[in-house]
Amino acid sequence: MSNLTETAAGFRISVHAPKRLLYGPGPSQVHPRIYQAMAQPVVGHLDPYFFQISQQVQKGLRTVFGTVNELTLPISATGSGGMETAVSNFIEPGTKLALFVSGFFAERIGEMARRHGAEIVRLEKPWGESFTPEEQVDFIRRERPQVVAFVQAETSTGVFQRSRALCEAAHEVGAIVIADCVTSLGAMPVNIDENGIDVAYSCTQKGLSAPPGLSPVTVSPLALERLKQRKSPNRSWYFDLSLIADYLSESHRYHHTASATLFYALHEALALIDEESLDLRQQRHKIAHDRFVTGIERLGLKMLVAPGQRIWNLNTVLVPEGVNEAKVRAYLLEKHGIEIAGGFGPLAGKIFRIGIMGPLASDDGVDRFLAKFDEAMKETA
Amino acid sequence: MSNLTETAAGFRISVHAPKRLLYGPGPSQVHPRIYQAMAQPVVGHLDPYFFQISQQVQKGLRTVFGTVNELTLPISATGSGGMETAVSNFIEPGTKLALFVSGFFAERIGEMARRHGAEIVRLEKPWGESFTPEEQVDFIRRERPQVVAFVQAETSTGVFQRSRALCEAAHEVGAIVIADCVTSLGAMPVNIDENGIDVAYSCTQKGLSAPPGLSPVTVSPLALERLKQRKSPNRSWYFDLSLIADYLSESHRYHHTASATLFYALHEALALIDEESLDLRQQRHKIAHDRFVTGIERLGLKMLVAPGQRIWNLNTVLVPEGVNEAKVRAYLLEKHGIEIAGGFGPLAGKIFRIGIMGPLASDDGVDRFLAKFDEAMKETA
Repeated sequence: MSNLTETAAGFRISVHAPKRLLYGPGPSQVHPRIYQAMAQPVVGHLDPYFFQISQQVQKGLRTVFGTVNELTLPISATGSGGMETAVSNFIEPGTKLALFVSGFFAERIGEMARRHGAEIVRLEKPWGESFTPEEQVDFIRRERPQVVAFVQAETSTGVFQRSRALCEAAHEVGAIVIADCVTSLGAMPVNIDENGIDVAYSCTQKGLSAPPGLSPVTVSPLALERLKQRKSPNRSWYFDLSLIADYLSESHRYHHTASATLFYALHEALALIDEESLDLRQQRHKIAHDRFVTGIERLGLKMLVAPGQRIWNLNTVLVPEGVNEAKVRAYLLEKHGIEIAGGFGPLAGKIFRIGIMGPLASDDGVDRFLAKFDEAMKETA
Repeated sequence: MSNLTETAAGFRISVHAPKRLLYGPGPSQVHPRIYQAMAQPVVGHLDPYFFQISQQVQKGLRTVFGTVNELTLPISATGSGGMETAVSNFIEPGTKLALFVSGFFAERIGEMARRHGAEIVRLEKPWGESFTPEEQVDFIRRERPQVVAFVQAETSTGVFQRSRALCEAAHEVGAIVIADCVTSLGAMPVNIDENGIDVAYSCTQKGLSAPPGLSPVTVSPLALERLKQRKSPNRSWYFDLSLIADYLSESHRYHHTASATLFYALHEALALIDEESLDLRQQRHKIAHDRFVTGIERLGLKMLVAPGQRIWNLNTVLVPEGVNEAKVRAYLLEKHGIEIAGGFGPLAGKIFRIGIMGPLASDDGVDRFLAKFDEAMKETA
């Protein structure tokens, strides 16, 4: 395991990271061209070239989000920073938030919203289930909140939550809708505009297959109007969208020192998607998902989530009787350098979380994984 | 300027960034070995190898901060995110903050502290000046605050603020001290423990010469005690130090998806410092600074800041009569790919901000810059 050698001074020499095959919920496998992009020289955060890159990144993000929202940009933080951006800008003390909860990341939205002063009402279901259009509409009509939040792709359970009815009902009562698209963006149709989602955030290290570090965010004109009507300033300065948008898109007035390196990586990830086409990339993830499910069922295993409600690029497989999931994961990592994840919360010990994303979303990528996974279960039995 | 070519689909091809010489206040020039480190394969944020790297990074940061603080780690955001980490964890509604203000970044601390509920008292001086030990002590004894904040290296003015008396007075009245070390860390002696600073934050892209994206933070046992005594939760979830420390240092319980790539870069930056030795690196910056000042004065120019109060790695030079500073900067960037910065706020149009840091802090680095700078002033006259 140890690839670090201490120097005489007790410190260490250069990084020699092990080559992993990242079949977990993220970070996902990074395309070689993205590493090359990060070798490009750093330019200043106010350099004209940086703003060219930034503008192209914003354009590419609009495509993958499926939106024409002008305010679409990356936040200089990981996906959870994107979540705090969405929450902190659209919640102020006393804002009534209706939250759909059936997994870990919905709970996290609630935790952040509480810190930003929200009055929260919740509709709950067991982890692994999704909400029907009727449940969505009834809850929103009954509660008449100012903001509705839900998780489109719940990384803790593998559920993809449809949201057309939710967004319609929200707009009917004058609410805006926040969606967590951390796992879906780049691998599944997110369709911000078609669904009617107002605010969405994601990350760079799952469906986009770039390294972690930035969080794409998009904001509808309706949400932007709300932002301008806030009575109190955002409790967070770092995540204040009006300052960030002014820096990245408008006056280019300094806000923070954005990382050219991470922008290059995201730029290259978006260029790769553009070359393949978003539609074909999404289809590729669907095909890999179907092949994975067929293979898993052939091994006698079962999926946690009902068909039609599954995230394509993150599969949750029930741990069968007699299998020690921690041992299987350790075997895969140590023997084959393959990373997968287990469940947590109420699903701890009960599921494997297996990502088939980016460069690994191929026939070979699926078949290679299934063979090693089968071996791991047998060897650790 | 345009290095981006649009594809038929209206998008663009791979990144081909121009090679800049970064003589601004940051980002600074990145060492080639750091680019190599970022080409190392991404591993998961819960991978045992990631925690090895993280542990070494924490060790290296203790050295450059000059501290034995156990809680010393990088935040997954830029330097301003480090500032919000310091402010949000140690300010809660009603906390009395004594703030020393003589530049832009002190104002920013105030702006953040206000959003986190502080009652702020300020001691102000014109931009470019520093506070004497007597002024520090008088202010703190008079105000008896719970938290004192100051900027050790004020990037907007070039002033290095000494703080031994400040810290003693603060502890005398039971306050903890927050210091902004964004520009000093890695290039000047920060000496957290020797000075008695309780909480400090920095960035990766100035004195450490890595790309932007992480923010090193250190917290004394006294400050940690205060953190545990908070009456209300941190208004920010993303910057909540107790959660971050638990993830990076203690239980390794998931908080956010840290960027292996940025940790590799920081690790390599710290390894380079270890190889050179921190003392020699700091001396190298001092020698380059002295050579720069001599050269500037030989050109007939003057420094904004009085001798003995200057940041070694960030020089602020007064714009002489008849020189158009914006034209000089544009000439340097367009003709020689050299980035420097101007002043802002009350110093807009009045100073150049010139960083001599990292790989550029050498005789050659200084002489090459001075020749081009002289040329630029003559050519744009």
